[in-house]
Amino acid sequence: MQFARPLAELIAQFERLPGVGPKSAQRLAFHVLRQPEDDVRRMAEALLEAKRALRLCAVCQNISESEQCEICLDPRRDPKVICVVAEPRDISSMERLNEFKGFYHVLHGLLNPLEGVGPENLKVRELLERLRDTVEELIIATNPTVEGDTTAFYLAKLVKPLGVRVTRLAHGMPVGGELDYADTATLLSALEYRREL
Amino acid sequence: MQFARPLAELIAQFERLPGVGPKSAQRLAFHVLRQPEDDVRRMAEALLEAKRALRLCAVCQNISESEQCEICLDPRRDPKVICVVAEPRDISSMERLNEFKGFYHVLHGLLNPLEGVGPENLKVRELLERLRDTVEELIIATNPTVEGDTTAFYLAKLVKPLGVRVTRLAHGMPVGGELDYADTATLLSALEYRREL
Repeated sequence: MQFARPLAELIAQFERLPGVGPKSAQRLAFHVLRQPEDDVRRMAEALLEAKRALRLCAVCQNISESEQCEICLDPRRDPKVICVVAEPRDISSMERLNEFKGFYHVLHGLLNPLEGVGPENLKVRELLERLRDTVEELIIATNPTVEGDTTAFYLAKLVKPLGVRVTRLAHGMPVGGELDYADTATLLSALEYRREL
Repeated sequence: MQFARPLAELIAQFERLPGVGPKSAQRLAFHVLRQPEDDVRRMAEALLEAKRALRLCAVCQNISESEQCEICLDPRRDPKVICVVAEPRDISSMERLNEFKGFYHVLHGLLNPLEGVGPENLKVRELLERLRDTVEELIIATNPTVEGDTTAFYLAKLVKPLGVRVTRLAHGMPVGGELDYADTATLLSALEYRREL
């Protein structure tokens, strides 16, 4: 038996989401059918509204409701430091620390030559344009992966000649972690990043 | 930092889906933002359309686009047998076999006294009304769980006095399974349902 057409269509739509297989898609679709109509309408509107109302901040490329995002419009922030992240969600990880008071720049991806992602596919040009200003330090906060490393080294090479200091988040033992359980790469990084006590 | 309001709202909506935690909800929301606007509109419409166009079949309580579902309207089906299932999705499991040619009845749940689900919360009355017809056998295809067992026994007790034969899907070793790995309950069922060779 086929599912009734609108149900089949809804299942197909859920299946297009990342990490949602055929079984989960069915479960989600049946869940929707059991919801009150108002709730389903709210979800549909949230989808349309997010797509309609959100764009990229003209300065830092973060997701924003207005021409510039709240962070870029905040006059209390330090214009001397820019933290470079791969994705908009990384900003919320940094902001949770309540420690970093500079600005951000979102690359929207990482260099990945094997998958054909080059600098022209990332917001690199937009970053370089911002460096004409008062920026003294670029903190590169890409993940410690092959792509994150490649992107960090590429940006460092590009930006250092402009007289901007380029730093990167330290790699090392997670706080509370045990030597016994640390993988070799992490341990090697921890050794390399060691500090005087 | 908070996410921009429409983004926060979309994340909240995804979080309300079963099995979607805060991290997955964020990932789904960012995925939506990367999609072309047409795709997002299609998803929103699928949600609304499924909710608007679908209802329960007046006969078998399956999800249907019209007053009666396709199966109930199929004149080639055998009106002497009704297969009772807990959820609409169970019908597609049965139909995949291409073996059962009777009709269905969807209970929309299983008896669960601990959670306050009694016969009045299921489509039991609707089932009894159908038994006035030509029905000779009721095949109960509820899951082999406590709730599935309870529901099966309850229905059997209710329906047998009406002169309808009540059967249930066999429990036993899954085909291709190994004795070594079967749990005790399954093995006990397999012993109980044993057949002459």
